[in-house]
Amino acid sequence: MTITVFGDSMSPFSRNLYYVLKELGLSHEIAQQNNPEEIKTPEYLATKHPFGKIPYLDDDEFHIYETRAIARYLINKYKGTKTSTILIPSDVQKAALMEQFISVETSYYTPPLIKMVGPLALKKLHGNEPDLKIVNEAREELEKTLDVYEKLLEGKDYLIGEFSLADLLHVPLTFYAFRVGEGELWNKRPNVSRWWKNISERESWKNIVIEHKSI
Amino acid sequence: MTITVFGDSMSPFSRNLYYVLKELGLSHEIAQQNNPEEIKTPEYLATKHPFGKIPYLDDDEFHIYETRAIARYLINKYKGTKTSTILIPSDVQKAALMEQFISVETSYYTPPLIKMVGPLALKKLHGNEPDLKIVNEAREELEKTLDVYEKLLEGKDYLIGEFSLADLLHVPLTFYAFRVGEGELWNKRPNVSRWWKNISERESWKNIVIEHKSI
Ligand SMILES: N[C@@H](CCC(=O)N[C@@H](CS)C(=O)NCC(=O)O)C(=O)O
Ligand SMILES: N[C@@H](CCC(=O)N[C@@H](CS)C(=O)NCC(=O)O)C(=O)O
Repeated sequence: MTITVFGDSMSPFSRNLYYVLKELGLSHEIAQQNNPEEIKTPEYLATKHPFGKIPYLDDDEFHIYETRAIARYLINKYKGTKTSTILIPSDVQKAALMEQFISVETSYYTPPLIKMVGPLALKKLHGNEPDLKIVNEAREELEKTLDVYEKLLEGKDYLIGEFSLADLLHVPLTFYAFRVGEGELWNKRPNVSRWWKNISERESWKNIVIEHKSI
Repeated sequence: MTITVFGDSMSPFSRNLYYVLKELGLSHEIAQQNNPEEIKTPEYLATKHPFGKIPYLDDDEFHIYETRAIARYLINKYKGTKTSTILIPSDVQKAALMEQFISVETSYYTPPLIKMVGPLALKKLHGNEPDLKIVNEAREELEKTLDVYEKLLEGKDYLIGEFSLADLLHVPLTFYAFRVGEGELWNKRPNVSRWWKNISERESWKNIVIEHKSI
């Protein structure tokens, strides 16, 4: 059995998969794809990701792209085989609420977060001056989302009560928000701050931070 | 058992759920929410959808929001009980590919489609002049996505070979693209055009078109 992730150490979407793989205790190979031109070649588009993105997964010749789909696949196939981590509950209602929160992450959390972190990361890495209008607008949008999270997380340690894929998918990009100096957005909200500690202080995430180059 | 959808006849996201419910043969009530202010009231935000959107579902006191999460829930809970329609395959690899295509729909198909159809629908309904720069940019982006679909659908009747939730989620917005005069984008691509016929000429969708007010 060989699991290969075509991804990049610094890519937050790739890091979601490294996190899932560690939680499941699955050994895997990483094919580094950090050349932005390589993922747009006709060969890459025809055989890996037709929209020219990372990550992409090869699991013993089974090919699949799109982060959240790959994550669900790995969990459905391998959960419980090497570790006791579940990540996707088997109860139909709990699983439904997990999907609800993945859609919340995809719709209201990740888009403004990328818009805010992207330019600030480019500044940190290469000194490029960010467009502050875009960054500020994104931060404002994110504040509104985090206000909702503050309510949703009242009295809860995790989004659906127990740790799940829905929480995990928030970690890599939020970690980068802290790295570019925006952690206060999370820290100043008590429920959000507690949740952030719960989902980012797990052993497997701490190992990813040590093993992979960060922004 | 009472299933209630809080939605709107004309809302494409609500129509995804009506389509799923018909395919599953489930009777349901529709609580019309066509007042844009009502879904932003403190009461709606606190008890229905905290981000102020439709649709929202109440299934015998189980509450859930976000279209794709609701759809997966209804299918996982009720598939096979009233009709033989499956929509989510039980095979792990097939289910993974279905999720891959839902993520493709969410990431590359629906965003430009909304940007193109939204302003054209407002023109059709209320005579508002659309910002043609936005519409044209969105159309260009969509053309690129449809070029990829044309390849992905080569030799296939449906995205994963058989009809699934991934196909279904494309129907309501694409139907509106035809209604505002943009059908040529689909018609001029032979594989895409064949696929569009397969997914939009099903009995249950035809009934929704008859029963609900369209743009
Ligand atoms: N919808 C994709 C998005 C993946 C994505 O945007 N990946 C970034 C790296 S984190 C990428 O490939 N960017 C290069 C590009 O867009 O050209 C997924 O969920 O996997
Ligand atoms: N992420 C949501 C999006 C739903 C959505 O955008 N619904 C539209 C109607 S089709 C809406 O509620 N618009 C009102 C608004 O955004 O204020 C989902 O997947 O259900």
